[in-house]
Amino acid sequence: MADSLRIGIAGLGTVGSSLVRILQQRSKELAITCGRAIEIIAVSARDRSRDRGLDLAGITWFDTPEDMAKKAEIDVFVELVGGASGAAEKAVRAALARGIHVVTANKALLAKHGVELAVMAEEKGALLNFEAAVAGGIPIIKALRESLTGNHVSRIYGIMNGTCNYILTKMEKEGLSFEACLKEAQRLGYAEADPAFDIEGNDTAHKLAILTTLAFGSKISADDIYLEGISNITIEDIQAASDLGYRIKLLGVAHVTESGIEQRVHPTMVPLDSVIAQVDGVTNAVAVESDILGELLMVGPGAGGNATASAVLGDIADIAKSRPGVQQVPVLGRPAKSLSEYRRAKMKSHEGGYFIRLTVKDKAGVFASIATRMAENNISLESIVQHSRVHTEGGPQTIILVTHATMEDAIRKAVKAIKSEKYLVNEPQVIRIERT
Amino acid sequence: MADSLRIGIAGLGTVGSSLVRILQQRSKELAITCGRAIEIIAVSARDRSRDRGLDLAGITWFDTPEDMAKKAEIDVFVELVGGASGAAEKAVRAALARGIHVVTANKALLAKHGVELAVMAEEKGALLNFEAAVAGGIPIIKALRESLTGNHVSRIYGIMNGTCNYILTKMEKEGLSFEACLKEAQRLGYAEADPAFDIEGNDTAHKLAILTTLAFGSKISADDIYLEGISNITIEDIQAASDLGYRIKLLGVAHVTESGIEQRVHPTMVPLDSVIAQVDGVTNAVAVESDILGELLMVGPGAGGNATASAVLGDIADIAKSRPGVQQVPVLGRPAKSLSEYRRAKMKSHEGGYFIRLTVKDKAGVFASIATRMAENNISLESIVQHSRVHTEGGPQTIILVTHATMEDAIRKAVKAIKSEKYLVNEPQVIRIERT
Repeated sequence: MADSLRIGIAGLGTVGSSLVRILQQRSKELAITCGRAIEIIAVSARDRSRDRGLDLAGITWFDTPEDMAKKAEIDVFVELVGGASGAAEKAVRAALARGIHVVTANKALLAKHGVELAVMAEEKGALLNFEAAVAGGIPIIKALRESLTGNHVSRIYGIMNGTCNYILTKMEKEGLSFEACLKEAQRLGYAEADPAFDIEGNDTAHKLAILTTLAFGSKISADDIYLEGISNITIEDIQAASDLGYRIKLLGVAHVTESGIEQRVHPTMVPLDSVIAQVDGVTNAVAVESDILGELLMVGPGAGGNATASAVLGDIADIAKSRPGVQQVPVLGRPAKSLSEYRRAKMKSHEGGYFIRLTVKDKAGVFASIATRMAENNISLESIVQHSRVHTEGGPQTIILVTHATMEDAIRKAVKAIKSEKYLVNEPQVIRIERT
Repeated sequence: MADSLRIGIAGLGTVGSSLVRILQQRSKELAITCGRAIEIIAVSARDRSRDRGLDLAGITWFDTPEDMAKKAEIDVFVELVGGASGAAEKAVRAALARGIHVVTANKALLAKHGVELAVMAEEKGALLNFEAAVAGGIPIIKALRESLTGNHVSRIYGIMNGTCNYILTKMEKEGLSFEACLKEAQRLGYAEADPAFDIEGNDTAHKLAILTTLAFGSKISADDIYLEGISNITIEDIQAASDLGYRIKLLGVAHVTESGIEQRVHPTMVPLDSVIAQVDGVTNAVAVESDILGELLMVGPGAGGNATASAVLGDIADIAKSRPGVQQVPVLGRPAKSLSEYRRAKMKSHEGGYFIRLTVKDKAGVFASIATRMAENNISLESIVQHSRVHTEGGPQTIILVTHATMEDAIRKAVKAIKSEKYLVNEPQVIRIERT
């Protein structure tokens, strides 16, 4: 049997602790499967005195991840610290500079510095694996950078934030408000005390940035992704969606168009009978459309200590099964230096169907006015209906429009024109419809 | 750049032709992605004179796959011939004997000789990749043998035959008979002229045998898998399933139980609102339940020249990205010599819910008699109803039973007892319910 693979783990939170436990409990079978033992020889975490219920006897403790990356005699540096910059970044750079393989679950780091780190890794002949960074236990990174080699991807989309999907699922199933469901998600530990990063779509955007690069061979660009969160989705939207045969999901979508790559995160109507519409609760799902394979969809746990640790373990095992120093798979699907410049399509040129919900005063001519504003912007309507569930005689009326495929720009102009009329009672709701 | 990877392709049918075309059209980008060129230097197919629309200039033609495997100066032998034995087997053995890597799409070959071939490959330091052998373009082999390393799998199940899923989908959507839908599948080229291998479940069983080995680390055992096809599923079953909140799918299921591994292929009721229930037409889906990752589901094209070629290409690219002669991944998930003996659970000890449809004469006491037979076998009923869709006064009545989890043995005894009564008009229909 070959020499053991010596690893150092930085970060002993939920994922790190779970990983240590699995590596220790299953060391014998892992040694058989991988052809050599995987040995934890170094760890680093913020608080040395905290009782994590782990047996760390014989493992060298380092006070900082960077220190471990610079000094420990390891083959693999496992980064579970988190954060786009700071300690995690310094440590990963230090490890790669020594030619040490890196396994990380850090989406923020990759979204910000991924291309640079990939270039470093490839120059040093080191591997940089990051299956856990996107959609937890779903092996979407491996699928994109290995299985789909040779395919041209046209679109990738998915449910990549469990918190948002939990809230939307609960709103629909129990008829509760966004606020009530958010509170429940916080109580269950699915949402942070400050939930903005999840519910405003930033978390999904980081993951989408990484997937976009793997799918299209472009440099990573996490800034300026079009972002709309779920905080203004109401129970009325969800019910109207259901009546029309749709369900609302927060999707991250990256799509190749003639004018560049569209990257957007927003609440999205998907057909009720589609596979992705059935993805409930904290579960994630990612779909990839490519020209040779066709459409591939993967569904699984997007977060959680064990699911994430499983992805990290898979990355470590890939290194253990290879021989040390052998560069196998380009970090970002193709050599980092060959990644193309990112060309972003403008959001206003997005084409698709739209759902528009208007709350209007109950007076004659409103339907005609709305239909006229749409027609003036060359928007073809699939339907315009007064939503019966919320109709009260004489009170405000809800009107739901569904358009055929049209341009975002036209929708914005039409909605602006409608807002300039005096019959709107509150802000119009606009939700994009995605073909699935 | 490293030396090019020289491949020989045996079999130029739909998949082989598609593969040649992709490798030629995308040679430049593949060379960049893989770090070296992939060059077709040899081919073999039955009929040399046939016009396949391929440019084979400069490629050496071999009259038999075995000849190519023995003589061609190739790094990778791509086997797209098919068949459990014969030409394909001889050629693969010859290639492995020379230490040449093998990529194959041949499920029958692997189901029969997989362990032996894996031992050969590992002894010679050759890779044996077979992503295309199960569920076409879905990267389930890679997920099991790489991503899930360290996980203990408890159950794997899926829709692995597009022909059957197409027929069942069409029966439900259009209310047509099995026979009518089979004819349509044959017209569209989804089903063979002799469809028995697909519709009786043998094809699914081959795939299940391979997945079972990867999931549980046991030797491959394709013989004696419990088999029930879809040819006796009627439109009444499908309607009754729908009324009860289920949909019927032909599933292959492998499950670890206390008495061994259960392996079964049969029509199965899955909940209408489950993700797998939405998998329509020729699409395949495979779900894996494991203790660290949790549940992972993959959905995608299970057949077709391009989807299969995509999986073959991914396997070739994995070899191209590695360095020649480097053994990386154990062929069957762990070293073939360490695979455990297969211990099969008896089908009569299977536990689960059951749907039973009885057509009975319209006379008093039938309900009571059926309920009594069930009770005598300790079968707890969830419901027993007269199915209203097909009820005609005085004519035969349809009675539908749904049981709580119970033993297959008890069901068989109860059904036998009921058959010995004289009120049955025709054979009882028994369909298993699967938790998803």
